[in-house]
Amino acid sequence: MDFSIPGPLAETLSHARAFLDEAVLPREHHFLTHEFYEIEPELSLLRAEVKRRGLWLPQAPKSLGGLGLSVLEHGLMSEVLGRTPYGHYLFGCQAPDAGNMELLHQFGTDAQKAQWLLPLTRGELRSCFSMTEPETPGSNPTELACRAVRTGDCFTITGRKWFTTAADGAAFAIVMAVTNPDATRHSRASQLIVPTSAEGFEIVRNIPVMGHPGQGWASHSEIAYRDVKVPIANLLGPEGAGFLLAQERLGPGRIHHCMRWIGICERAFELMCKRATSRRLDQGRPLSHKQFIQGYVAESRAAINAARLMVLEAAWKIDHAGFAAARVDISLIKFFVANVMMKVVDRAIQVHGALGLTTDTVLAHYYAHERGARIYDGPDEVHKAAAGRRILDGYANDGDA
Amino acid sequence: MDFSIPGPLAETLSHARAFLDEAVLPREHHFLTHEFYEIEPELSLLRAEVKRRGLWLPQAPKSLGGLGLSVLEHGLMSEVLGRTPYGHYLFGCQAPDAGNMELLHQFGTDAQKAQWLLPLTRGELRSCFSMTEPETPGSNPTELACRAVRTGDCFTITGRKWFTTAADGAAFAIVMAVTNPDATRHSRASQLIVPTSAEGFEIVRNIPVMGHPGQGWASHSEIAYRDVKVPIANLLGPEGAGFLLAQERLGPGRIHHCMRWIGICERAFELMCKRATSRRLDQGRPLSHKQFIQGYVAESRAAINAARLMVLEAAWKIDHAGFAAARVDISLIKFFVANVMMKVVDRAIQVHGALGLTTDTVLAHYYAHERGARIYDGPDEVHKAAAGRRILDGYANDGDA
Amino acid sequence: MDFSIPGPLAETLSHARAFLDEAVLPREHHFLTHEFYEIEPELSLLRAEVKRRGLWLPQAPKSLGGLGLSVLEHGLMSEVLGRTPYGHYLFGCQAPDAGNMELLHQFGTDAQKAQWLLPLTRGELRSCFSMTEPETPGSNPTELACRAVRTGDCFTITGRKWFTTAADGAAFAIVMAVTNPDATRHSRASQLIVPTSAEGFEIVRNIPVMGHPGQGWASHSEIAYRDVKVPIANLLGPEGAGFLLAQERLGPGRIHHCMRWIGICERAFELMCKRATSRRLDQGRPLSHKQFIQGYVAESRAAINAARLMVLEAAWKIDHAGFAAARVDISLIKFFVANVMMKVVDRAIQVHGALGLTTDTVLAHYYAHERGARIYDGPDEVHKAAAGRRILDGYANDGDA
Amino acid sequence: MDFSIPGPLAETLSHARAFLDEAVLPREHHFLTHEFYEIEPELSLLRAEVKRRGLWLPQAPKSLGGLGLSVLEHGLMSEVLGRTPYGHYLFGCQAPDAGNMELLHQFGTDAQKAQWLLPLTRGELRSCFSMTEPETPGSNPTELACRAVRTGDCFTITGRKWFTTAADGAAFAIVMAVTNPDATRHSRASQLIVPTSAEGFEIVRNIPVMGHPGQGWASHSEIAYRDVKVPIANLLGPEGAGFLLAQERLGPGRIHHCMRWIGICERAFELMCKRATSRRLDQGRPLSHKQFIQGYVAESRAAINAARLMVLEAAWKIDHAGFAAARVDISLIKFFVANVMMKVVDRAIQVHGALGLTTDTVLAHYYAHERGARIYDGPDEVHKAAAGRRILDGYANDGDA
Repeated sequence: MDFSIPGPLAETLSHARAFLDEAVLPREHHFLTHEFYEIEPELSLLRAEVKRRGLWLPQAPKSLGGLGLSVLEHGLMSEVLGRTPYGHYLFGCQAPDAGNMELLHQFGTDAQKAQWLLPLTRGELRSCFSMTEPETPGSNPTELACRAVRTGDCFTITGRKWFTTAADGAAFAIVMAVTNPDATRHSRASQLIVPTSAEGFEIVRNIPVMGHPGQGWASHSEIAYRDVKVPIANLLGPEGAGFLLAQERLGPGRIHHCMRWIGICERAFELMCKRATSRRLDQGRPLSHKQFIQGYVAESRAAINAARLMVLEAAWKIDHAGFAAARVDISLIKFFVANVMMKVVDRAIQVHGALGLTTDTVLAHYYAHERGARIYDGPDEVHKAAAGRRILDGYANDGDA
Repeated sequence: MDFSIPGPLAETLSHARAFLDEAVLPREHHFLTHEFYEIEPELSLLRAEVKRRGLWLPQAPKSLGGLGLSVLEHGLMSEVLGRTPYGHYLFGCQAPDAGNMELLHQFGTDAQKAQWLLPLTRGELRSCFSMTEPETPGSNPTELACRAVRTGDCFTITGRKWFTTAADGAAFAIVMAVTNPDATRHSRASQLIVPTSAEGFEIVRNIPVMGHPGQGWASHSEIAYRDVKVPIANLLGPEGAGFLLAQERLGPGRIHHCMRWIGICERAFELMCKRATSRRLDQGRPLSHKQFIQGYVAESRAAINAARLMVLEAAWKIDHAGFAAARVDISLIKFFVANVMMKVVDRAIQVHGALGLTTDTVLAHYYAHERGARIYDGPDEVHKAAAGRRILDGYANDGDA
Repeated sequence: MDFSIPGPLAETLSHARAFLDEAVLPREHHFLTHEFYEIEPELSLLRAEVKRRGLWLPQAPKSLGGLGLSVLEHGLMSEVLGRTPYGHYLFGCQAPDAGNMELLHQFGTDAQKAQWLLPLTRGELRSCFSMTEPETPGSNPTELACRAVRTGDCFTITGRKWFTTAADGAAFAIVMAVTNPDATRHSRASQLIVPTSAEGFEIVRNIPVMGHPGQGWASHSEIAYRDVKVPIANLLGPEGAGFLLAQERLGPGRIHHCMRWIGICERAFELMCKRATSRRLDQGRPLSHKQFIQGYVAESRAAINAARLMVLEAAWKIDHAGFAAARVDISLIKFFVANVMMKVVDRAIQVHGALGLTTDTVLAHYYAHERGARIYDGPDEVHKAAAGRRILDGYANDGDA
Repeated sequence: MDFSIPGPLAETLSHARAFLDEAVLPREHHFLTHEFYEIEPELSLLRAEVKRRGLWLPQAPKSLGGLGLSVLEHGLMSEVLGRTPYGHYLFGCQAPDAGNMELLHQFGTDAQKAQWLLPLTRGELRSCFSMTEPETPGSNPTELACRAVRTGDCFTITGRKWFTTAADGAAFAIVMAVTNPDATRHSRASQLIVPTSAEGFEIVRNIPVMGHPGQGWASHSEIAYRDVKVPIANLLGPEGAGFLLAQERLGPGRIHHCMRWIGICERAFELMCKRATSRRLDQGRPLSHKQFIQGYVAESRAAINAARLMVLEAAWKIDHAGFAAARVDISLIKFFVANVMMKVVDRAIQVHGALGLTTDTVLAHYYAHERGARIYDGPDEVHKAAAGRRILDGYANDGDA
């Protein structure tokens, strides 16, 4: 076992961190208090600088112009980038585009790659992944209402999706729809690439999350698909393989989220410590002299260390034995890390007092916009039950033998 | 001991509840998705209806046109009103006006009552209470930077306040300012009535809380007092008694908050149960069949019952032995109930899944806008330490005897 | 609503408390460090003194020589008695005898009363209640393996029971056994009075709980019933009514436990506070100056107040509307109060440091011997699920209407 | 970073585990239900077998006949051994002897090594470490009352110690005593080797922990030192260096405990899963089908993984950068892992129901005898405050610069 980070990777991480500290954190408050389309031009300039520094697309293979980091290595990078809500976007590894790149890279035809993947890797357009529906259990992609009926060379898509992240302004959506309603549970759905300019594709609203509808990349849309027609060539992967592809996408997606959450934890922790040492109480003693605060710091540090090591071990397992081997681990970190994050953010707010509720720090943003972490990609309860069952199954077999 | 609610009170509560169910809840989503000044006219009509039904000012003495409820009775009323964010406002017992009415009623001169109290009780104007400052510990009103210097017949006020709730659109502020900097710690400050039209009174901003600056009654302002002059007649209570009056105001204020939070708990609990029984999972079984959900419901119900009884007992103690006797109780409920509320709201969101994050239910509003409950009027940590010390003092004396 | 305790009851409680403080607490350490049969003579003398002071059998009707307290009143008494592990025993209201008295009083024939109930109420003999079995789920009395077969005038009982509290030295057991295996689920079992002198009744062992087998009243036995014959006259209540009677017994039993646990909470809290104020740290400052300790005290006080009020409200509900009306409440307090108790005891140990692990205080006894509180009479999980389901059922009906 | 265990070590661990599974676990119940002196002969035979298999003294350098494992490697071994309360004893790495070996190895004179260290490494005698005192704060070794006065060639030791683990039957004690009362705080105490046969050395009692006084290695004694004389040659390390040596001893001691606790966690987890899959509820469905149980399993697995990785990372840090570098980490794992352990043991008991309270599984032993883990070698609160302060100090310096 070895907990050290090899020199070259350490250097890359340090460059990434330096860039964020110099160029992004000083602008973060401005970004947080303006809508996405207002700040997009400045974000574009920063992205260009990331490319210039050779840090663009850390997660993508070198053949796509990325840094070709392993899952573990990207985990460490993601921890750095997660320190600000804009880190992943600026480095080209933001959800949902990173997951879509992976899907297209693995399952796309040459034509799909040329049309959609390449401009995506260059940051020239954005995409979205349209799976969750308002009326069916989001945690179960086998229960979809959205239909895609094949007639001739076309699929005609009808249905309603919501919480399609970043649909506003995206060039295309990857849509999960039932193409084979009579197939076995896991073979009913397919994934289809739908240009957002297609007739019948309508963004009904950007859903207000904790009161904010957001904009552009920073939004989640409700979308009506009204007889949207796409050519057969837009089928991504085999027909009926939608669920399998979704699994391929969500597995890594979950660990990417967990990695990013560690970065959020570290940022909130840092803010908490800085506030505790700078805020003076009566008689000039800093807040950090209070045992309650020391307790929050120690408990948060322990929890973050725990979360971080679990995420890195899961990433290492994926690198060495594949996603299937890390399935239980991913369920465990999905709920564990999300809860650590919300707890640390909550404590950091508490240490800031009223200031923590305002937009004067990034904490309120995290509190409101990361609450979803315990819900999306499978709520806590689903992952707990799934991991518990899978572990217990091992003992049941044992017992019966 | 008797846990029953006497018939006439039960009837009043039931009228209040019926009014909310009929006239307010159907409009709540509209209210939540519009700014205060947009909905104020409709709220005014509803207030008129409350007066017509004889339910106006439940907490105020009959001499002021109120229902003259005891603290315990108003606790039960407040539980009903807390079911929607607009309940207290519509019945005329909303913070900060209710507290200001009490201050003016107890300590105001006849002239002050005529000018400020009476229109306040009629709902003709609004007020605010301007104590907390950005740079001094909010939990300690003896550490104020704001100064009021007396020259001739005037006080000249200089300082900066923030989180002055409902200052936007208020007719006057009650301002805590240091008038006697050389007095003993608890005798330095005084309370002054400041018309918001006074020269030098400037609302710098409505502070964005979880991203929302809000408006009117539903906002918290940062205020600059730039040499604001008020006549000596605007002194509320004796000079140097500001801290004492603040105590008088905050004690009841805290229990009023706790009572309101019980209402929020009940509302969130109700939404959680309704969602759990109506949401179908795969194979049509409702979410309520899951043990995790049953656990959330049972734990929430126990916690709400606990919180409710503690608040009512504290109210009863105040009615029978005065605020001083209930000091430890008030500190205990301040942190206990706020935490129960946030936990129940959090669970209700979790049971709603993605829907819980949207404005389609009231839960996201509570999650974002009641997080402050664990901070304002003394953060959890201050109340825990204070209650702990006070209890332990009893044993120390005992031990020394 | 009224939270006051009426004068005469307050006086009775105060007499009970004074007796414990004077006569029992000074001997508690001796009792705790000796086995039951060693201390039984001294306990008998103390019981005689309780009778002399007119405090014997607080829970029993006056017709049986008791004080005739209501459930609520006995709840308050039980809180006092729970301050020491010997309180209930000394006052004649200890489990399992109190529950058996109630069963015999309600359902016993005149002969059964004369033979078993009267000497029980006088403290002349002890009894036990033999329901739980090692191989069947203890939380479900409808799944019993123990059989009682009727032949002629006799029942012949065969089976194995465990955790039969206080069987060691008891004069008789009330045994749950299946008499009608083909009846509907809740009509299969009956209750039978079995003298422990009956042939075939064998105490296999006193089960070591946390390593202690205990003795006499302070023990839990594993019992083999090997073709034990009892006359038909020993049937308690109607044949097939065993489950119904068990419900009658367990409902009150649960609230009696909860009441006792409040007493344990108060004792542990008192010890914690005394230790915190008397233990000196470096430089002579007491432990109570530490915020962590203040936090433990405040959080414990809040939790105990909560638990206490919930128990009293449930008792009041039973007094006024019967057990059925308080069913959910009893499930809620069963898990809520047991957890508060274990948490408070745990904190009190922590505040005592190594001393808390020793027999030098009563805390280690509570820690080891009350852990079962979260298991017996239905584990936490069963009560949470049951209460959750029952509450949710209300909403489901509502929703369907 | 690399989370794999190298082949040869994996093989050693697997041998150790196989030995425990074959030779020890089948005897564990017997051991748990008998006192130490009754089982010592059998334990000796098992130790001989451990030596024969080449697994003796895993933590000790090869020069002392040990396996020479690094801290990280011994962490993994300790995890295996911790699965049963007898693992460490059987392999020769049990507290307090392992720590004493380390002290003697590092600081002992040749004569001391010959007389005490060598027989200790061969398992021919036992030792104890006598530091904690009943009347002074155990968490602070600079506040000692025990005195050692030098006269001529002798030290005369006077004082009272308690919780001296394994003193009963030990050949010698290493005693912390104040030799230089006027020196600076951290230079007052020295460590002295005291044969337990010395005149004036008296074991007052084996302290009952959770009611058990225990015996031999499995006990904690209160000891009176009544003018015990030892030659100057028995001074261990320099005069006045007692505190420094204690730090040297306690740092590793803490991580050794944490490693052992992981083994306890794994054992309790395994028992919980086996019980959940084998226990049938009504209608024959296993307990493991219940979501509450799945939740306990998932949450426990996550917590154990977290604890395990944190301990291993701290061990790795010690191996590569020394104890000083891992100081905060050790404080964090001390409280984090102890709490995870107690929580997992508690859940495992809950899943076992009444059975979990008995001696029929090892769980009750862990529940009662590992509760001290949150107290000895610094209670949770001391480590939280210490780690919190140390972390915050980093930010304070940063802030001031």
